[in-house]
Amino acid sequence: MASKQDGLNRGLPHQARGHRVAVIGASGYGGLQTLRLLQGHPLFQVTFLGGERSSGKRWSQLTPFLPLPGDPLVQSPDPEAIAAAADLAVLSLPNGLAAQLVPPLLELGVKVVDLSADYRYRSLAQWQEVYAAEAAQVPRQDDELCKQAVYGLVEWEEERIRQARLVAAPGCFPTASLLALLPFLKQGLIELDGIVIDAKTGSSGGGRAAKEHLLLAEAGEAVMPYGVVGHRHTSEIEQMASQVAGQAIQLQFTPHLMPMVRGLLATVYCRLRDPGLAAEDCTTLLQVAYRDRACVQVLPVGTYPSTKWVRQTNRALISLQVDPRTGQLILMSAIDNLIKGQAGQAVQCLNLMAGLDGATGLPLLPFYP
Amino acid sequence: MASKQDGLNRGLPHQARGHRVAVIGASGYGGLQTLRLLQGHPLFQVTFLGGERSSGKRWSQLTPFLPLPGDPLVQSPDPEAIAAAADLAVLSLPNGLAAQLVPPLLELGVKVVDLSADYRYRSLAQWQEVYAAEAAQVPRQDDELCKQAVYGLVEWEEERIRQARLVAAPGCFPTASLLALLPFLKQGLIELDGIVIDAKTGSSGGGRAAKEHLLLAEAGEAVMPYGVVGHRHTSEIEQMASQVAGQAIQLQFTPHLMPMVRGLLATVYCRLRDPGLAAEDCTTLLQVAYRDRACVQVLPVGTYPSTKWVRQTNRALISLQVDPRTGQLILMSAIDNLIKGQAGQAVQCLNLMAGLDGATGLPLLPFYP
Amino acid sequence: MASKQDGLNRGLPHQARGHRVAVIGASGYGGLQTLRLLQGHPLFQVTFLGGERSSGKRWSQLTPFLPLPGDPLVQSPDPEAIAAAADLAVLSLPNGLAAQLVPPLLELGVKVVDLSADYRYRSLAQWQEVYAAEAAQVPRQDDELCKQAVYGLVEWEEERIRQARLVAAPGCFPTASLLALLPFLKQGLIELDGIVIDAKTGSSGGGRAAKEHLLLAEAGEAVMPYGVVGHRHTSEIEQMASQVAGQAIQLQFTPHLMPMVRGLLATVYCRLRDPGLAAEDCTTLLQVAYRDRACVQVLPVGTYPSTKWVRQTNRALISLQVDPRTGQLILMSAIDNLIKGQAGQAVQCLNLMAGLDGATGLPLLPFYP
Amino acid sequence: MASKQDGLNRGLPHQARGHRVAVIGASGYGGLQTLRLLQGHPLFQVTFLGGERSSGKRWSQLTPFLPLPGDPLVQSPDPEAIAAAADLAVLSLPNGLAAQLVPPLLELGVKVVDLSADYRYRSLAQWQEVYAAEAAQVPRQDDELCKQAVYGLVEWEEERIRQARLVAAPGCFPTASLLALLPFLKQGLIELDGIVIDAKTGSSGGGRAAKEHLLLAEAGEAVMPYGVVGHRHTSEIEQMASQVAGQAIQLQFTPHLMPMVRGLLATVYCRLRDPGLAAEDCTTLLQVAYRDRACVQVLPVGTYPSTKWVRQTNRALISLQVDPRTGQLILMSAIDNLIKGQAGQAVQCLNLMAGLDGATGLPLLPFYP
Repeated sequence: MASKQDGLNRGLPHQARGHRVAVIGASGYGGLQTLRLLQGHPLFQVTFLGGERSSGKRWSQLTPFLPLPGDPLVQSPDPEAIAAAADLAVLSLPNGLAAQLVPPLLELGVKVVDLSADYRYRSLAQWQEVYAAEAAQVPRQDDELCKQAVYGLVEWEEERIRQARLVAAPGCFPTASLLALLPFLKQGLIELDGIVIDAKTGSSGGGRAAKEHLLLAEAGEAVMPYGVVGHRHTSEIEQMASQVAGQAIQLQFTPHLMPMVRGLLATVYCRLRDPGLAAEDCTTLLQVAYRDRACVQVLPVGTYPSTKWVRQTNRALISLQVDPRTGQLILMSAIDNLIKGQAGQAVQCLNLMAGLDGATGLPLLPFYP
Repeated sequence: MASKQDGLNRGLPHQARGHRVAVIGASGYGGLQTLRLLQGHPLFQVTFLGGERSSGKRWSQLTPFLPLPGDPLVQSPDPEAIAAAADLAVLSLPNGLAAQLVPPLLELGVKVVDLSADYRYRSLAQWQEVYAAEAAQVPRQDDELCKQAVYGLVEWEEERIRQARLVAAPGCFPTASLLALLPFLKQGLIELDGIVIDAKTGSSGGGRAAKEHLLLAEAGEAVMPYGVVGHRHTSEIEQMASQVAGQAIQLQFTPHLMPMVRGLLATVYCRLRDPGLAAEDCTTLLQVAYRDRACVQVLPVGTYPSTKWVRQTNRALISLQVDPRTGQLILMSAIDNLIKGQAGQAVQCLNLMAGLDGATGLPLLPFYP
Repeated sequence: MASKQDGLNRGLPHQARGHRVAVIGASGYGGLQTLRLLQGHPLFQVTFLGGERSSGKRWSQLTPFLPLPGDPLVQSPDPEAIAAAADLAVLSLPNGLAAQLVPPLLELGVKVVDLSADYRYRSLAQWQEVYAAEAAQVPRQDDELCKQAVYGLVEWEEERIRQARLVAAPGCFPTASLLALLPFLKQGLIELDGIVIDAKTGSSGGGRAAKEHLLLAEAGEAVMPYGVVGHRHTSEIEQMASQVAGQAIQLQFTPHLMPMVRGLLATVYCRLRDPGLAAEDCTTLLQVAYRDRACVQVLPVGTYPSTKWVRQTNRALISLQVDPRTGQLILMSAIDNLIKGQAGQAVQCLNLMAGLDGATGLPLLPFYP
Repeated sequence: MASKQDGLNRGLPHQARGHRVAVIGASGYGGLQTLRLLQGHPLFQVTFLGGERSSGKRWSQLTPFLPLPGDPLVQSPDPEAIAAAADLAVLSLPNGLAAQLVPPLLELGVKVVDLSADYRYRSLAQWQEVYAAEAAQVPRQDDELCKQAVYGLVEWEEERIRQARLVAAPGCFPTASLLALLPFLKQGLIELDGIVIDAKTGSSGGGRAAKEHLLLAEAGEAVMPYGVVGHRHTSEIEQMASQVAGQAIQLQFTPHLMPMVRGLLATVYCRLRDPGLAAEDCTTLLQVAYRDRACVQVLPVGTYPSTKWVRQTNRALISLQVDPRTGQLILMSAIDNLIKGQAGQAVQCLNLMAGLDGATGLPLLPFYP
């Protein structure tokens, strides 16, 4: 199969692909995206494929459409075995399960990027409050790790991620929302109360496990709100927004399910403190904030982002408009929910943890349409 | 073809179908929906089919999939000819063109429901401001008719519609938004500033004329905002909202294009004046407001509407949630953009103008999924 | 809720709705379509709602978007209770389970239309061969009923259905395929070997139970063959085709899953015995065959059917083309897989069994687009 | 913008990107795919962007979502200017127009890959017959070039493409169909008459120009045949099939429009000459035929390709099944219509013409889902 591997890696000397990466939970969407991205990466190689249910099977049996070099066996995610094979690990496991695997992996010297919510909060107590159902089933005592873990919103935590041994990859909604909001919170340009985030996501955000409401017959040709008031990502957004604003923020977050496979748009409504600010001013602020950021692109005033423009890329597209009548600033932020909103941002973190440029090997341009 | 007409009308004596209706602009989506609804109506019959470009053609040549009894010829929309054939007319014409046809039709005694925006404003001056491009091309002097015309939001103007000779069918976004907002504005329960309407529509809302951005290849698998700040429906919503509130309202309205054919969801964010009101209280208020309204259904707290639940029906589904932390009321209102948001509401108006119950002959239940 | 029932039934005297119908398996797609169609029917009323898992629940809890008059309780499908409440029953149950309920229902005098495959074959032995997995789990000894049951392809079995007490509603693929093929087989105009049916179906054909491959994330933006060689509907098509041809036929049937909710297109390839026949000749033959058939429409030569043209209707659209170079006849047949392909045809059968015109109360015209 | 270019090219020395490529007709789908692929290519750089209507505009104005290094101006496609800037050119122009540009480009020493049909036939006369409408508008006298041009089906013409100065990239339907059929025709294993190709394509195959029937509102949730008998790709398939079979072949080809953006599946029906051949035997034959072909993958018996498995890749997936009852061989071939079916195969040809491995820089693995 060697002659059939992804052309992107062709011609690179094997020894140059030095960083050995384990992917645990390989057959869900997070795992699949991670594997695909790593196949296109010049300096990482997948050296361990872990899965509980699929353990013992050949990869090609599970996923005939994504051949991996050597067609590896999926293995039970034993920490010792992972540590023997890999320097870095990406965990794509249900909430609560990652926390079982992370402590031993860290102890064995494996650096971890975790896609679950287990380490996104600064304290175990808050996780236990927000993820109460999972907390009831899984005993955890790793409050110390919660405090150590770095929130992997790369453009805002780059230096800490470079030094981290444990990174919690942000949720998809927080990624899109925060990238748009944080520059304005940091500069103190918007009112802290009354912020509204109306978010729209493709159905792959619901994962690969079969659920009735995510069937094409149900979710196709339909738009529907869910988790209205109290969706878990609210607290995740508020935590980071409050930290950057230097003040506690409570905001409104409402996700909607879209009849499409992938893509996420957050439309954010807030009030400018200075009603004299124009859209051009605010756009300049955003451009400055993300000037050297390969994975964030700010659009000119009057051009609004389509989720299709970031499909299968690790780029966020942000645009804004100001309504001088109402004093409102409308921010629009589009990402691919499975790439910049999940696995791509995780690889961005991996890059930093491995001493590389954050965007190394990541797709930034869409195949439109 | 008589033996093949829609089964819904079967068995009804022909003389009972007394009201003669003209449909002008028959091959656009508004016209097609109107024709389809009238085929299923027990007491209306289509007696004139008008179209400019398709004039002189047999209907079956244009639309093989919607056979009409007698396979009529499409005729040039001459007012005299329309008046000779019909008592009522539904106009589905581009903005600006309806205003050319309405004055002579009214003079000839034909009652009109107009699907365009030409008579949605109380003054010609406001129409000319909002629809400046059309106004520049079409000279109009019918300010008096603008004042006389009734805004066809049935559940709020029923008595005036019954007496009207000219009804302006509301836009799709205003219909969904206002049905949710008006009860709270009328009761004075919400703050008048800071209202945000985040709306999502299927691509049929863009009409049948071919445009690049509405191609399946472009709009499929994509979510995108458009008309951010200043979309024309903003002023239409504000006009009616201000009238019911008894005070001028300026609000934020942002439409988004969804990757689906039909359906429209308006998510409305506003602040409760009394932070002690619970979702149950607000739901009761809505239920009282729409108690005897066949075309509006209020969902219980915790059940959120999918646009699919109203697909191809003339029903609006409304639900709400309250966030006690932020004091916000979130209203969700789903309609079929081409039925309750356009042609169905027009037929509802026709029913009233013909002395019938508003819901006569209108589909209210979806074929799910 | 009485004031909110479907407008289609408004004003009809209650006593006129004389036929009492039980719907068993109400919350699957077959049941939902049946209920919706019966809500729009002038002469049937649903008097029993049966379901195993949902037994004891109020209908509105299960299906908030399809309110039924009186908001009935779902009941356990006990034959005595069904017979006490209803004259006719529609069974929408998994293969194998219907056969448990049918014998007692018939004995109690209830006429049955069964949506499953249990009575589609002339012999129990053939069912046991084709549905071997189900047969292994469900003991059956009702070979006699298999012989008595009438195959509910209305346009070809109308007289027998009128007399029947048990009708097996055909599968969706057989319905579309046979309506196109049978006229040519009956007239002996095509070769009996080498027939190819390439069929395309919306994902609702896979039912409402959650399965990974039917998730929007999987089935959206994807086209895929399945059941290649040996799909169960092959034998069902062959049985009826052979009967009409008077000779055993073996043909090729390949279904494909489409990225849409509903709709089914069968493209049928066969060879004309007389290479001199033109498309117009063959179209005339079809038109004659279905002249008085409200639920089948033959399109003129050169107009090809879209599944959208029959969406949510009980109509089949058939068209054809002839290739004089190859001598092949290409038949195209479009239906709504859940209406003419399932529940609508079942109601068509119910109509006949109740002495009504077959198309009574059935929608025949689409709401396009 | 240099810091924001696609990460795939990062770190490669600029001088290594030696081959200068012109892309003419850059804003249609063919042009967009070509540009995107070249952005991810290690050894090509785009040095000329040509377009008629968009001439004089900055690229970022036309396509904000696909930033190109330096944000070049789109230029009028003048042959001298192209030749001054580029060694190789990809033409993505309407049929008939490419033939105006190709002769001067070749004369100036620019090697050309043409995406149109202008050079797909061995004789000008045949092109003029099949593309009669275009031929009536465009005078051509380049029969000699038609004979010289190489048909760019890489896996079957690799050696000739390496030597070519003019390559005609095959149509999307011929690519998928021929890759499946040719191995069996070459080995003489199937009957030459009675071959049926039933093809399904995403709507992007219809191009970016706005057409009513390709609107999402029309083509969404719909499946429809078109071009039944006589579609232009029929003759293109027959030409190559006849050449490989060594005998004239006439076959049946029917395309269908799918409700999805991209992807193409050809289901091919033919009869085995030796009825004893099993699916495993035929699969082995395919595997041998494409053993060292990075862009064709043969699936094991029983695994059928989804178009999603090749989305945005240059890989064809082929699978087959045999029906021992009917003696038929069913071939299934999935490609991305815009990549392997168009621009990707063009870049594959460019690679060969530049002396590189055919798969250089081409994506072969999908981002699933």
